[in-house]
Formats: sequence, C-alpha cells, structure tokens
Amino acid sequence: MLKVPEHQVAGHIAKDGKLGPLVDDRGRFYKPLQGDARGENEAKFYESFSSNKNVPDHIRGYFPVYHGVQLVEASDGSGKLPHMVLEDVVSSYVKPSVMDVKIGSRTWYPDVSEEYFNKCIKKDRATTTVSLGFRVSGLKIFDCQESGFWRPDKRVVLAYKADGARTALRKFVSSNSLADDSVPDCAYASEVYGGSNGILMQLLEVKAWFETQTLYHFNSCSVLMVYENESGGDEERRPQVKLVDFAHVLDGNGVIDHNFFGGLCSFIKFIQDILESSDNRCENGH
Amino acid sequence: MLKVPEHQVAGHIAKDGKLGPLVDDRGRFYKPLQGDARGENEAKFYESFSSNKNVPDHIRGYFPVYHGVQLVEASDGSGKLPHMVLEDVVSSYVKPSVMDVKIGSRTWYPDVSEEYFNKCIKKDRATTTVSLGFRVSGLKIFDCQESGFWRPDKRVVLAYKADGARTALRKFVSSNSLADDSVPDCAYASEVYGGSNGILMQLLEVKAWFETQTLYHFNSCSVLMVYENESGGDEERRPQVKLVDFAHVLDGNGVIDHNFFGGLCSFIKFIQDILESSDNRCENGH
Repeated sequence: MLKVPEHQVAGHIAKDGKLGPLVDDRGRFYKPLQGDARGENEAKFYESFSSNKNVPDHIRGYFPVYHGVQLVEASDGSGKLPHMVLEDVVSSYVKPSVMDVKIGSRTWYPDVSEEYFNKCIKKDRATTTVSLGFRVSGLKIFDCQESGFWRPDKRVVLAYKADGARTALRKFVSSNSLADDSVPDCAYASEVYGGSNGILMQLLEVKAWFETQTLYHFNSCSVLMVYENESGGDEERRPQVKLVDFAHVLDGNGVIDHNFFGGLCSFIKFIQDILESSDNRCENGH
Repeated sequence: MLKVPEHQVAGHIAKDGKLGPLVDDRGRFYKPLQGDARGENEAKFYESFSSNKNVPDHIRGYFPVYHGVQLVEASDGSGKLPHMVLEDVVSSYVKPSVMDVKIGSRTWYPDVSEEYFNKCIKKDRATTTVSLGFRVSGLKIFDCQESGFWRPDKRVVLAYKADGARTALRKFVSSNSLADDSVPDCAYASEVYGGSNGILMQLLEVKAWFETQTLYHFNSCSVLMVYENESGGDEERRPQVKLVDFAHVLDGNGVIDHNFFGGLCSFIKFIQDILESSDNRCENGH
C-alpha cells in the first residue's frame, strides 16, 4: 500500500489528485518520472551514480539508495506509471524536523532553453540563490512546546532574504516557540549541527568531495537535513544530510561543480556561525 | 614622465588618445577614476582594504599596494584627472609573461541595473564565465623561439571554450612555438605553476582566505599571473599572483564570496591538472 509522504517539504506533492511521490511502509520512496526529460534524466543519473566506481563509498551514503524503476499506481489516478524506487530518507524517524536547501548561485545551466533560463534566473534573483548561493526550499520543524509540526508557507520561505534564511536555520535547531517572533534559542544546535556525527561534519565531508570531483554537475540539487525529535530513553537525534533531486544533473566533463561547491561553502559558513554563536552563549551562561 | 604600460593585457588601454592607465619609471601604476561610480568605488575599496585590520598580512601581499589618489595628466589629453596610484605589478620584470583571468561564474551582482545585468549575463554566457567559473580576459606570453611576445586577439580570447582556456593555460608555461597549433610542451609548468613559491601555492593561500572571509565580495575581479622570461644567471622566474580590478567590490555582510570562491577553486583545478599531466610526462621520459 502506497501513501502520500508525511514529511515531504519541497517539490511536487501528491495530494488533491496531483502527481507526486509516494512511500510504502518498508522505507521506500516512489518518485514518478515526470512527463518531460527531467524524470528520465534523474533516473539516468541514479543508474550512472549507482554503478560509478569513481564515487567513494563514504560519499555514496549521502545519496538515497536507488532500487531501479518500477511501474506503480500513480497518485493522480492516471494508472500505472514508471516511478524511481528510492530510499525513504525520513522513514526511520518518528518526529523528524526536515529542511530542504537548494544549493548553488544559479539553478539554470549552459545550453538550457531561453524559456527555462528566464524562469530560473527570475526566481534565482527573487530568492537568496544569487546572493547567498543557496535558498531554503521548504522546512518542517517539530515544535516541542506545541507538540506538533510548524511549517511556514512556501511563499514565505521563498521570500526569505539573508536574515530570513539565517533565522530559519536557527529555528530549525531551537526548542522555543516557532510561530512567534521570539529569538530562537538554538538549544539543539550542538546536538544537531555540531559533534562528530552532526550536520556540519557531514557537510564538510560532502564539501571535500566537491572540491575535486569532476564527474557530475549537480544543478538545482538540494541538501536535505533531518533529525529526530522523539525523546525516548537515549535522546539520539540522528542528524542526517542527504543530497536529493537530480533531474538537472549533467556530466562534469573534467570541470569541478563550482556552482554547487561555492553555494555549499556559503551554506556551511551559515551553520558554522550558528554553532559559534550558540557555543559562546553557553560559555557566557546565557 | 608617465607612459602607456607595456604589459597591460586587459581593461581600458591608454592609446590612440583614449583614457587608460599610465605608469612611471619608479614602479607605480596610475589608474584614472572612471567617470561613473566605478572609479569611486575602486578607490573606496582600496581605502577600506588598506586600513582594514581584519585582513591578514600574508593576504595583503596578493593585492597591489595603494598610494592614494593623485591628480595627473590624463592619457586622453583632457587635462589633469584623479588617478589611483598603485603598485605597478610587472615593473620589476624584464620579459614578463602575463595573464588576466576574471574569476566568478557571474560578473553581475544583486541590485545592479537591468541594463548592466543584461550586458553582463550575455557576456558571461558567451564566454566560459558560466561554464567554468572564470574566463581568460587577456594574455601576453614571451615566445622563446621568436624572442618576442605572443598576444592573441581579444576577440579570440573571449571566444575560448573550456578547451581554449585549458590550452591557453598550457601555452602560458610552454617553451615551444605559440602561434601555431603544436601541442604546448608545458616546459615551465613545474617552475611557474608548481613549487613552494609557485602560482598554485599562492592561489591556495588566497583560496584559504576566501573560504571564510566575509568582508568583501569581489565581483568582476581578476587574478593576474606574471612570471619572468629573462634568463640571466639565476633563472629565477618569480611567479606571482595578484588580485586586480575592484570597481565592483561590495561589502560581504557576513556572507562568504561564494561566486569568487567557487570560480577560484575551478581555476585552481585547471592549474593542478596541468601540473599533474606535466609531472606524469616527465616521469614517463617524454
């Protein structure tokens, strides 16, 4: 039995009879191949990536596992359609906070149509893509005080300027009320962003690969960040970084992906700044 | 007595009664403040940078020394005009090979006029700026066989694709004839690009600063590379990297210069690839 994913924060959503991804209860994510070349291109990327011996094993872990293409009943009632079968990254979390950050200072790339170029660059200039080298595409944060999920409207998220993006990244790791204007306390910053298995260390590992890899150019690709809010006995937050959305990946042709790399480093600096300021706060006893 | 610089490879040239930079015989470079805001902006940058205590000393060496603004007789005969007085980077070289590489995957930036945006993005897409994150703006290479300088036409340089840029970077350190289609031998690669004082080590030092610096965004700024071809007793090539052209520098506002940084890292990869392939050739005895 396939159902609509509960924790999807960006991209096409399979509801109200629309076409979108589905999940099963065994931890798999079914992403329909879109009608145009994008779906084909993403499946082609997963095929290439899965079998590419030049990708180091520790880097492979930052990508959803790929299980091929399967015909499954589409969410829009149009019958059986080909879907990529992927690892459902959030399936093992009970109350996951999730954020999708699209990396790069542009989402278009050489040789796209003028129509696509115009559409992308307009959005890139209207969001923080050009100014920061990344934009928050969607987020969903578990609010401990309200004991439910807080999820800002998509239009609000895409209208973030630098300060908005910074605040969202602080709220993502805060315990105080999210919907109002109180200053985020960054209570979980050290557990989620920091530490030897935290988001920052994972991003730095991804960064080190991008510094030299010339296999692929990850146009319009996102970093997905997830962590657990269910507090059982052990309080393990299991922060996790995954790269997702490969509909616009191209061959690197011997050139590094300077667009993704620059944006990723800018994003990393934002995370480092939050960690530093929350460390200082602890030291000062606030 | 001021004269037209002999080794300028990009930017406005002071000849045929046009306004351009001049040099004196004491190693100073006089750059006219252009009529619009650009000249003002560049002088403002030099003032800010010169007095900025957050810039490490070893980084300061990668920028021309600034000696303030002076009124001097302009090259276009329009009388005395304000000029920035800068270090003439090539003045201590007898036969310098020089290359100007504009860094970044865009030369425009947020909040420019639509006219300027359109002009820049057209050129960025037509050159390697978008695809490689840098473009060769000009070069002048001493040709040992011809015992003179080889300087491709500006239109040819701006029409380079990835292969053209790679070949230019190989020719820049080659001893064989430059004008024809023979494969560049990269005879000076290890002396110029390699070694503990070579271009690569200097670029890596600049890169390390850009990884975290959020003081300035160096839009439309170039890396200038110079080395000596005069073979006296000691054969010292004195490879040197300088950053130049700051008419479009903006405050960083706490964000790293992901555009310059990404492009610089892509450029560095090109240099590393040339060094590696020329090392391999030596090892194989070719």
